[in-house]
Amino acid sequence: MFYFIIDILGTIAFAISGVLVAIDKKLDLFGVFIIAFVTSVGGGTLRDLLIGNTPVLWLRDPVYLYTIFGTVVFAVAFRARLKYIRKSLFLFDTIGIGLYTMVGIERGIAVGLSSIMCIGLGTITACFGGVIRDILCNEIPVIFRREIYATACIFGGVGYFLLRRLPFDDAYAFMAGIIIVIGIRLIAVRFKIALPSIYKTT
Amino acid sequence: MFYFIIDILGTIAFAISGVLVAIDKKLDLFGVFIIAFVTSVGGGTLRDLLIGNTPVLWLRDPVYLYTIFGTVVFAVAFRARLKYIRKSLFLFDTIGIGLYTMVGIERGIAVGLSSIMCIGLGTITACFGGVIRDILCNEIPVIFRREIYATACIFGGVGYFLLRRLPFDDAYAFMAGIIIVIGIRLIAVRFKIALPSIYKTT
Amino acid sequence: MFYFIIDILGTIAFAISGVLVAIDKKLDLFGVFIIAFVTSVGGGTLRDLLIGNTPVLWLRDPVYLYTIFGTVVFAVAFRARLKYIRKSLFLFDTIGIGLYTMVGIERGIAVGLSSIMCIGLGTITACFGGVIRDILCNEIPVIFRREIYATACIFGGVGYFLLRRLPFDDAYAFMAGIIIVIGIRLIAVRFKIALPSIYKTT
Repeated sequence: MFYFIIDILGTIAFAISGVLVAIDKKLDLFGVFIIAFVTSVGGGTLRDLLIGNTPVLWLRDPVYLYTIFGTVVFAVAFRARLKYIRKSLFLFDTIGIGLYTMVGIERGIAVGLSSIMCIGLGTITACFGGVIRDILCNEIPVIFRREIYATACIFGGVGYFLLRRLPFDDAYAFMAGIIIVIGIRLIAVRFKIALPSIYKTT
Repeated sequence: MFYFIIDILGTIAFAISGVLVAIDKKLDLFGVFIIAFVTSVGGGTLRDLLIGNTPVLWLRDPVYLYTIFGTVVFAVAFRARLKYIRKSLFLFDTIGIGLYTMVGIERGIAVGLSSIMCIGLGTITACFGGVIRDILCNEIPVIFRREIYATACIFGGVGYFLLRRLPFDDAYAFMAGIIIVIGIRLIAVRFKIALPSIYKTT
Repeated sequence: MFYFIIDILGTIAFAISGVLVAIDKKLDLFGVFIIAFVTSVGGGTLRDLLIGNTPVLWLRDPVYLYTIFGTVVFAVAFRARLKYIRKSLFLFDTIGIGLYTMVGIERGIAVGLSSIMCIGLGTITACFGGVIRDILCNEIPVIFRREIYATACIFGGVGYFLLRRLPFDDAYAFMAGIIIVIGIRLIAVRFKIALPSIYKTT
C-alpha cells in the first residue's frame, strides 16, 4: 500500500513534468496527454521491452492510464498555477525516481540478471521516460546535459546491492536504496553539484 | 480479401506520406525508403513490441516490404507529380488509419487486454508510424500539434466496443468502427474542426 | 575467438563514434556514456526486440557494458587526440558493420526468417545504433543523408545468401559477406561514390 501510494505520486509527478514541457512546445491536448503518458510510463515500458516482460505493465494495469489522464486534466485546467507547486513537483519527481529505480532493479533480479545489469535497468526505468519525452519534443534529453540525476539512481542501486549482503531483511536494503537516490539528488540540487565537466569553460 | 486490399492501400498511402516528408528533408534514396517503411509499419511494429507479438508482423509477412519498396520506386520516379494525387492520398491515409485502428484493437482483444487498452493499442497502430517518421526527420510529431487524427481513432474504438454489445455479428461493429474513424476525420478536415486550444491566441 | 575480437573492436569503434558526437553536442559525462552505449548496442538491441530475443543481448553478456565503459573513459581522457586515430576508427567501424551485418543475418536465420528479412535484420543491426545516436543528439540520422553505408550491408547480405548455395562450408560465405560489406564501403569512400541523388543540384 505504501509503495502503491509512492508509485502513484511518482506517476503524477512525471506526468506533470510532461505536461509542462508539452505546453511549452504548444502541443495540442492530445499531444499534451501523450507526452505526459510517455514521461510517466516510458522508462518502465522500455525496461519491460528489454527484458521481454510483455504485454508491458501499463497495458495490464489501467491504474497508470487513469492516473495520468486525471493528472493531465487537472494540470491543464490549473496550468496557470503549476509554477506554485514546482517545489512539491520536484519532491514527487525525486521520490519517483528513487522508487522507480528500485522497482526496475527488482524486475531485473526477477529475470535473473546480474547486479550491474539490474542497476542499469533501474536507471533506465527511472530516467528514460524523461528521455523519450525530450526526443518527442525535439530536444536533446535534459538528463544528458546537466545535474546529478541518473548518477543518483546508479549510486542508489549500488547501495542496495551492498546492503543486501548484510544480515537484514531485503526490505531494509530496498528502502535504503530509495533513500540514497533521493538523498543524493536533493544534496546535489541543494548544493548545485554536477558531474565534472569535460569541456573548457568559455 | 477486402481487408487485404484496404490494408495494402493504407500501406501505400502511409509510405507515400513518408516519401513526401523524406524528400522535403533532402534525404538520400536509402533514407527515403527507411522513412517510408517506418511510416507504414512503425505503428504496427510498436504495437507488436508492446504486446510481445514477435517476430513483429513485417518480418513474418514480406508483402509489406515489397509493397513499400514498389511504392517508393514509383513515388520517387513520379515525385514531381505527387501533388496531383494529394487528395487521393488523403483518402487512402484516412481509410488506412480507420483500418489500422481496428486491426490494433483486434490484436489487443486477442491477447486479452481490456477495452480501453485495446483502443489505445489501435490508436498507436494507426498513429505512431507518423510519429516515428517525424522523430526520424527531426520534427515534433505533427499529430501532437494539429487536427483531429488520433481523436478520430479513439472515437472509432469507443464506437466499436459500444456496438459490439448489440446482438449483431461483430463484423458489423468492426466495419462501423472503421467508418466512424473515417467519418470523423473527413468531417473534421472538411469543417476545420480541431481540438479546443489550451493556448491564448496571439 | 577471432569473431569475438572483431566484435569487441566493432563495439569500441562504434562507442568512440558515439563519444565524438556526444562531445560535439557538449553532453555531460553521463550523456557521453549513454550515447556511446546506444551507438554500440542500439542496432543489436532493436534487432533482438524485433525478433523477440529477450532479455536483449547486452543484458545477458556484460562484456559489452565493460568494453564501452572502458572505451568512454579512455576516449574522454584522450579526447584531444581522438582526431589522430580517425583513420583507424573508420577501419574499425567498417569492420564492425561488416561483422554486425552478418551477426544480424545469423540471428534472423536462427528464428526462421526469410532471406530478405534476414538481410534487413542484418542491416538494422549494423546501422541503427548510429540512427538512435543521431536521434538522441537531435540530428537527422547521417546514414539517411550521405554515403554508401546501409547499402554496403545490403549487398553483403545478398552476397552471403548467393554464396551459401555453393557447395562450400557456410563459414566461407559468412566471411565473404563480411568482406563484401567492408570492400564496398572502402571503395565507396575512397572514390566518393554515393547513391544517385534524386534532387536537382542547386
